[in-house]
Amino acid sequence: MTRIDGRRADQLRPVKITSDYTKFAEGCVLMEMGETRVLCTASVEEKVPLHVKSGGWITAEYSMLPRANRERTARDISKLKLSPRSAEIQRLIGRALRSAADLELLGPRQIIVDCDVLQGDGGTRTASVTGGFLALVLACRRLVAEGKLAKLPIRTFVAGVSSGIVNGEALLDLCYEEDSRAEVDFNCVMTSEGNLIELQATGEGRPFTPAEQEKLLRLAGAGIRELNAIQKSITGDLI
Amino acid sequence: MTRIDGRRADQLRPVKITSDYTKFAEGCVLMEMGETRVLCTASVEEKVPLHVKSGGWITAEYSMLPRANRERTARDISKLKLSPRSAEIQRLIGRALRSAADLELLGPRQIIVDCDVLQGDGGTRTASVTGGFLALVLACRRLVAEGKLAKLPIRTFVAGVSSGIVNGEALLDLCYEEDSRAEVDFNCVMTSEGNLIELQATGEGRPFTPAEQEKLLRLAGAGIRELNAIQKSITGDLI
Amino acid sequence: MTRIDGRRADQLRPVKITSDYTKFAEGCVLMEMGETRVLCTASVEEKVPLHVKSGGWITAEYSMLPRANRERTARDISKLKLSPRSAEIQRLIGRALRSAADLELLGPRQIIVDCDVLQGDGGTRTASVTGGFLALVLACRRLVAEGKLAKLPIRTFVAGVSSGIVNGEALLDLCYEEDSRAEVDFNCVMTSEGNLIELQATGEGRPFTPAEQEKLLRLAGAGIRELNAIQKSITGDLI
Amino acid sequence: MTRIDGRRADQLRPVKITSDYTKFAEGCVLMEMGETRVLCTASVEEKVPLHVKSGGWITAEYSMLPRANRERTARDISKLKLSPRSAEIQRLIGRALRSAADLELLGPRQIIVDCDVLQGDGGTRTASVTGGFLALVLACRRLVAEGKLAKLPIRTFVAGVSSGIVNGEALLDLCYEEDSRAEVDFNCVMTSEGNLIELQATGEGRPFTPAEQEKLLRLAGAGIRELNAIQKSITGDLI
Amino acid sequence: MTRIDGRRADQLRPVKITSDYTKFAEGCVLMEMGETRVLCTASVEEKVPLHVKSGGWITAEYSMLPRANRERTARDISKLKLSPRSAEIQRLIGRALRSAADLELLGPRQIIVDCDVLQGDGGTRTASVTGGFLALVLACRRLVAEGKLAKLPIRTFVAGVSSGIVNGEALLDLCYEEDSRAEVDFNCVMTSEGNLIELQATGEGRPFTPAEQEKLLRLAGAGIRELNAIQKSITGDLI
Amino acid sequence: MTRIDGRRADQLRPVKITSDYTKFAEGCVLMEMGETRVLCTASVEEKVPLHVKSGGWITAEYSMLPRANRERTARDISKLKLSPRSAEIQRLIGRALRSAADLELLGPRQIIVDCDVLQGDGGTRTASVTGGFLALVLACRRLVAEGKLAKLPIRTFVAGVSSGIVNGEALLDLCYEEDSRAEVDFNCVMTSEGNLIELQATGEGRPFTPAEQEKLLRLAGAGIRELNAIQKSITGDLI
Repeated sequence: MTRIDGRRADQLRPVKITSDYTKFAEGCVLMEMGETRVLCTASVEEKVPLHVKSGGWITAEYSMLPRANRERTARDISKLKLSPRSAEIQRLIGRALRSAADLELLGPRQIIVDCDVLQGDGGTRTASVTGGFLALVLACRRLVAEGKLAKLPIRTFVAGVSSGIVNGEALLDLCYEEDSRAEVDFNCVMTSEGNLIELQATGEGRPFTPAEQEKLLRLAGAGIRELNAIQKSITGDLI
Repeated sequence: MTRIDGRRADQLRPVKITSDYTKFAEGCVLMEMGETRVLCTASVEEKVPLHVKSGGWITAEYSMLPRANRERTARDISKLKLSPRSAEIQRLIGRALRSAADLELLGPRQIIVDCDVLQGDGGTRTASVTGGFLALVLACRRLVAEGKLAKLPIRTFVAGVSSGIVNGEALLDLCYEEDSRAEVDFNCVMTSEGNLIELQATGEGRPFTPAEQEKLLRLAGAGIRELNAIQKSITGDLI
Repeated sequence: MTRIDGRRADQLRPVKITSDYTKFAEGCVLMEMGETRVLCTASVEEKVPLHVKSGGWITAEYSMLPRANRERTARDISKLKLSPRSAEIQRLIGRALRSAADLELLGPRQIIVDCDVLQGDGGTRTASVTGGFLALVLACRRLVAEGKLAKLPIRTFVAGVSSGIVNGEALLDLCYEEDSRAEVDFNCVMTSEGNLIELQATGEGRPFTPAEQEKLLRLAGAGIRELNAIQKSITGDLI
Repeated sequence: MTRIDGRRADQLRPVKITSDYTKFAEGCVLMEMGETRVLCTASVEEKVPLHVKSGGWITAEYSMLPRANRERTARDISKLKLSPRSAEIQRLIGRALRSAADLELLGPRQIIVDCDVLQGDGGTRTASVTGGFLALVLACRRLVAEGKLAKLPIRTFVAGVSSGIVNGEALLDLCYEEDSRAEVDFNCVMTSEGNLIELQATGEGRPFTPAEQEKLLRLAGAGIRELNAIQKSITGDLI
Repeated sequence: MTRIDGRRADQLRPVKITSDYTKFAEGCVLMEMGETRVLCTASVEEKVPLHVKSGGWITAEYSMLPRANRERTARDISKLKLSPRSAEIQRLIGRALRSAADLELLGPRQIIVDCDVLQGDGGTRTASVTGGFLALVLACRRLVAEGKLAKLPIRTFVAGVSSGIVNGEALLDLCYEEDSRAEVDFNCVMTSEGNLIELQATGEGRPFTPAEQEKLLRLAGAGIRELNAIQKSITGDLI
Repeated sequence: MTRIDGRRADQLRPVKITSDYTKFAEGCVLMEMGETRVLCTASVEEKVPLHVKSGGWITAEYSMLPRANRERTARDISKLKLSPRSAEIQRLIGRALRSAADLELLGPRQIIVDCDVLQGDGGTRTASVTGGFLALVLACRRLVAEGKLAKLPIRTFVAGVSSGIVNGEALLDLCYEEDSRAEVDFNCVMTSEGNLIELQATGEGRPFTPAEQEKLLRLAGAGIRELNAIQKSITGDLI
């Protein structure tokens, strides 16, 4: 069976990563997976939120431009509320990035990773994790280069990918067309050691079996290994 | 190794379910798992949201009373924003309950399931799913009794439970004390057929292995079977 | 003439007070008057609002759960504004409780009394005063027990009750059914010495005479004496 | 004992009422009691709120200009919430005006009475009732003049005044200086027949006795009779 | 060609300025240009906003009362957002007033100029600048009188006026009737030396030529000279 | 005198326009002037706002990504208010685009032009007008191509540019570095016939003379002619 865009079931969409797409942020990449395009910037602030008692903090914000999608969506500010979907996603990104970092080593500063979706064609949350991780590393590199940090406060590569079951078949890295017809929706964040950081699986149209879940996890794991390699080609080793 | 409250690793906290704890809602249960206490009400509205083109809809709202926790938290309204954590949780509850239902059969009406945490001691989101499901069934039963529905638009029992890894050990149904020290946090919603509806796993302090994930899933599965049995003791068969 | 629920005109509904209904708040009672059920918690904060220049402060918040009533009401947060009715009521509760206390003696701390209506069947604001007062005393008792206060900073018992004119007859402690048909609505807060702290009377459908007002006040006064006795059975003397 | 401004205990401040102070509203008066100055406008809308099933509706909004007081207060919009005090007051004004009117006779239209305090020197809520009533009558007169109403849908004159106990003495129509030192604060709305529409009494610094309450009511009653006479000099008879 | 109200093309409406219309603000004028009536108050705060690193600050807020216009407009707070038009106008007023002042000389304090439109008949933004300037000067005079400032921190007189093209003719100081039919809308703020501080020109129905723009500027310049003279008659010299 | 980036006083920054940078909007250009980068999308909605009684409508929204600037700015939604600067700018863009269009010809539909600043280096509001105009034309072309419109409802090319006085010298198209030191800030929108649509001039640090204003206008006019030519190279003639 061929997919809409001709890919194999276990094939990622073309990945394109542009470092320093904008110039002001301490770290910035434009992350593209197929037609999905997310601008990820990392901003360093030399202070931490109140709830942080020791070390530093990493947080994320996620938003879609009004016309990133097929239909225009009103801006959050015109509805005076953060989209619940965005709230959920930015919590996921933040947790994933903090898991990759050594917050003690980061010291008393906060890094805010903004993930703004310029164009959304499925998989924006996992693309945000993968690209946001790179923006974070670039910002930390700059802190090291400026002598503010002795070494990179990053423990491991972290990337995310979606998978799902469409027409009974397990597919990697769903595009919007596939995603909208998926029976099971699977989002996964892993380290380059093959360990899990976050796993979210939802039966959209029907419940799913543990066996299906395992299959989707294997598929995602392979995809993430590929993404880790691409990440490494940009940042080099994490030392 | 004994747990804080003397339970075995695979043991649920005492479950207590009080039907019709309040009298106005079409369906209501007070759901207690150990010290966690959630008031779940289901309200029927004879109209559907704009985005629903055919059949009915089920949605959920989740909130904690200001002093449900060890520290008082300010009300959402005093900060003028829905807590992002609540936003995430109520989306989960809504998805889980819709998965259990036959929305076409429900007809052009909406059921709103409110889950208000009176006291929170860990596992409030999964207790909300388990209790919210019961409130939903009770409300639907009433629709059947009133002749508004020919049969119960519910396909299967649905319940949720948490599990997690604490001090290296996989434990079922974490209380707050355990939850706050958990290395891996696992929330799972399943049907009485043993299939998955929702699975959320997070490495809080460290990444986790696929093997650990499997173990937590088995633990949760057993817990959910127990909860399904308790649910059934309250609602009888779903026919 | 008999009332809907068989009571005499000057008879309170059954009063049930459950101390420590939840376990985290410094003071907590579940206050029930007939079918009206209000969860009152008192939370101690070791700081005062900016406007307090000397001594301590007591404030109140009041809210109804969405399905506390016959019809579901949307949460404040989904409308992004505090219900004006709630705003009015919580100001009343706060004033009443401050009147009962010696704020200088309380010292530089704030006590927030949350009154959350689990079920509303008339008289929720006065039940909130009566129950909130108890939560406040319990919280202060704990401060004394912990050695943070030398003596209870409470001057007098304070309770509230509604009365009203229904079908031309003055009735004590209206339930919702009566309240919705009342011509005159009377809410009164008094001390155990029989003095007034707050009095709010409204002609709903028609103006009322000073003589009617006097009659309603006498009725309320008797009801409050009964409530003070019940309060005392829970807290003992205020010393 | 003389008062700050030389008045007798039972003496109103000078009352000045300017009709049509602004020209666009269907009804408008600038209401002055001493230094308190409230601009009251009545706006007619040819539709009613959703909750009104039959007849018309009257509602009120109350606000203080930022520098109406000794200290500047931030605008509601800059805090994104309606001042709770304003919320409470505008509910009172609305109830009082509706009590004076025959809503059936008003027909399917709404009159919004805006009370904006240009300068506040005590008694703004009762001045708003007294002045808002006049704006309402003027707007209704215009509806009659335009042939939209057969007769004035107003049943009786309605006015409000404050009284209070200062240094142990009962005083009528407190100015700010007196109000800020008052032990008991009493606000009263009555009809020209001497009946009560609204009564709010608060012990600010101490509880008060029923005898004191009676005294304050008598004082207010006499003040309101004077205000009714002034109102009548402006509107003529209500026919 | 005669104008609606009989004025010549280059004639201002009657200007009436009432100082100290309210008594609490440090500076206050009621500014009237024809039927446009703006209450301008200047409030002194002995602190500056965070972004001000040296010297003082002047800011403005602008709002229309709900019934200042032909149609009632809902209050900002009921829509939970500052009217974009008000946002734009208050930025203009603030810039204009800061241009007139010596912020270093003002010292570490902020002056907030509130411009509340009681009645709007065209030209409210420029009337706010002209009147707001006077309120500012009066407040500064008081600071000098109280010995808080050695000299008036005001460099020059500043006033604003509108002009526009209506039916092809350039007119000064448009009233609402003219403004609503204007092809070009021109708002201008100048100093008494004839220099420009702010200029905003908009082609409402059609583009306009540089020659037209020049003509409108000349017209406005002459109007502002007249306004400066009136300002000076109130404040005397700025020394 | 040379400018920071080596340009002549009357020289535009390099202009780069990428059509269809994103694929979902009916019209889209990425507009770059030097380092300023604005994503402009035009979305067609087959309905009009309530206030539009005949023909169509065009409106604009403007926003900066959080890290478009040297410092990160918080998102509007986290402050719950639209930035007043954005409010002002999007009103300008909307007016300018409506001036260019024949709204009757557009028919009963609305076009929303979103201008999201990816990177801001001065002149974002005028770049938004210039780019937004192109997005608008592209969207209208599509309506023509789809047979929904008989002809392009655009009357003329419209573009905007900034100019200003820096160190006493009049410069065209200020970059941020220049803008932040400008004594006079001048923003201008003109048609390809050389007529004015919008003109906003502000003396930031000092008043300015009519002669200076004229000079800045000439400078802007020349810049806009260049921009019109570039626009035309993308859209061809407006027929």
